[in-house]
Amino acid sequence: MPNEKIIDGRAIAKKIEEEVRSGTEEFTIQTGITPGLATVLVGDDEASRMYIRLKHKACDRAGIHAEDHSLPFDSTQDELTTLINTLNDKDDIHSILVQLPLPPHLNEQAAMETIAPNKDADGFHPVNMGRLLIGKEELVPCTPKGIIRAMEEYDVEIEGKNAVIIGHSNVVGKPLAAMLLNRNATVSVCHIFTDDLKRYTTQADILISATGVAHLIKADMIKEGAVIFDVGISKIDGKVVGDVDFEAVLPKVSLITPVPGGVGPMTISILLQHTLESARRINK
Amino acid sequence: MPNEKIIDGRAIAKKIEEEVRSGTEEFTIQTGITPGLATVLVGDDEASRMYIRLKHKACDRAGIHAEDHSLPFDSTQDELTTLINTLNDKDDIHSILVQLPLPPHLNEQAAMETIAPNKDADGFHPVNMGRLLIGKEELVPCTPKGIIRAMEEYDVEIEGKNAVIIGHSNVVGKPLAAMLLNRNATVSVCHIFTDDLKRYTTQADILISATGVAHLIKADMIKEGAVIFDVGISKIDGKVVGDVDFEAVLPKVSLITPVPGGVGPMTISILLQHTLESARRINK
Repeated sequence: MPNEKIIDGRAIAKKIEEEVRSGTEEFTIQTGITPGLATVLVGDDEASRMYIRLKHKACDRAGIHAEDHSLPFDSTQDELTTLINTLNDKDDIHSILVQLPLPPHLNEQAAMETIAPNKDADGFHPVNMGRLLIGKEELVPCTPKGIIRAMEEYDVEIEGKNAVIIGHSNVVGKPLAAMLLNRNATVSVCHIFTDDLKRYTTQADILISATGVAHLIKADMIKEGAVIFDVGISKIDGKVVGDVDFEAVLPKVSLITPVPGGVGPMTISILLQHTLESARRINK
Repeated sequence: MPNEKIIDGRAIAKKIEEEVRSGTEEFTIQTGITPGLATVLVGDDEASRMYIRLKHKACDRAGIHAEDHSLPFDSTQDELTTLINTLNDKDDIHSILVQLPLPPHLNEQAAMETIAPNKDADGFHPVNMGRLLIGKEELVPCTPKGIIRAMEEYDVEIEGKNAVIIGHSNVVGKPLAAMLLNRNATVSVCHIFTDDLKRYTTQADILISATGVAHLIKADMIKEGAVIFDVGISKIDGKVVGDVDFEAVLPKVSLITPVPGGVGPMTISILLQHTLESARRINK
């Protein structure tokens, strides 16, 4: 019997994917349009290639048209801009994802700002980040959105709860803080400069860790009955592990995401959701 | 002798104003251009009229051209949009401020999004809010920016400190949280749904209260040596007071803003700074 404390990220991802699949089918019947995602990869990083492959496979399962656009590693910012602008103008593309990280000579921020805000698959365009901050969530970063969806699926109460986020990145920590504040959690954001992490984590009804430090969170650092989301991915002796010492904390938590099989799969399914949403909005 | 624990908001405002005045003088000599601010008031609310008058007076002192545009209370969204677009196109206007609140039949968010982002005096446009969230602070909301400036003036260390913000509004709480995270404070945001406010406030090295609840913060709620910013304005028996029980907490704090004469005056001077910055950026 599966442990009921363990959040099944793959099952949630499958559920979202199924929603997108049937929504896409309906949308295509009504409009004759197939939602389309374009991925952009600059260079040939192996991990990036793998992520893009996973995203394309998920699109295939959901009936979403997916295009793979690649540029050589030594491409200029202008060449990237030109490609993004071409995709911005393409009627059969409703969502654009520029795979990060870009090669170091390219400006990621400029690339994000080039993507048309209504085709912003990852929700990283500042206008979408700003709408998120002021409580008008439209296209928002996929990992935080997946986490919020998991909270909804498992009936995790947010309003009035003490939420603690570890990590203040633009991809997870800061947007997730905004999303939890929009839902009236009391939110604390800790990070590498925090001087007494345990004082925060032991108070957390909801704890989200996104640091990439293997087994940072031990059993004595969490509150009895906490809900824990582990966004970290690292390796110990060749084994993929998260930020949380999973086996040790399991007896104390009320809910926890495993690594792997927790937050990761949900993130990709949100990307599909964004593509369908954008196709609907663009063709309204 | 003035109490050295009391942050002199008027003196900081005066210093910023003087920087803007001399910067404006220099800019005008170099370019022949006078920085220009346009204020937009819809309706005839007395408090709003007073705020606009204060802003225009400050512009006069700093050598900034200020225009007052008024629309009747029953104006339509289209009429407001038309006015803002006219100001967006005016070469002698570098900064536009729509005085809030707007009459209830008008959409504030739509008005904020109509202002050209590079003329966004209050920093409320989502693209500016988004840049703020991702750490690219350009035009950011004036009150949080004034608070950060005061911290700089009084050498308040931010990195690694425990900062607690009470209030999660779009105008103060959320943008200030982002600004403090960008400076590597550990940030907690509390609000009306927080169930044990005191547990947070007693841990705060830096405490910012923006609730409008008179004397919400008592002496037993703060940490010895805390730095306190009081953004609240309310009245007790006809006397203007802040969120903090000033007299009671004064012996315990290391620094505190009074009400009035603390955060308020700084906010207006930041508006002048934004107008000069925008004029520079537009004419670069």
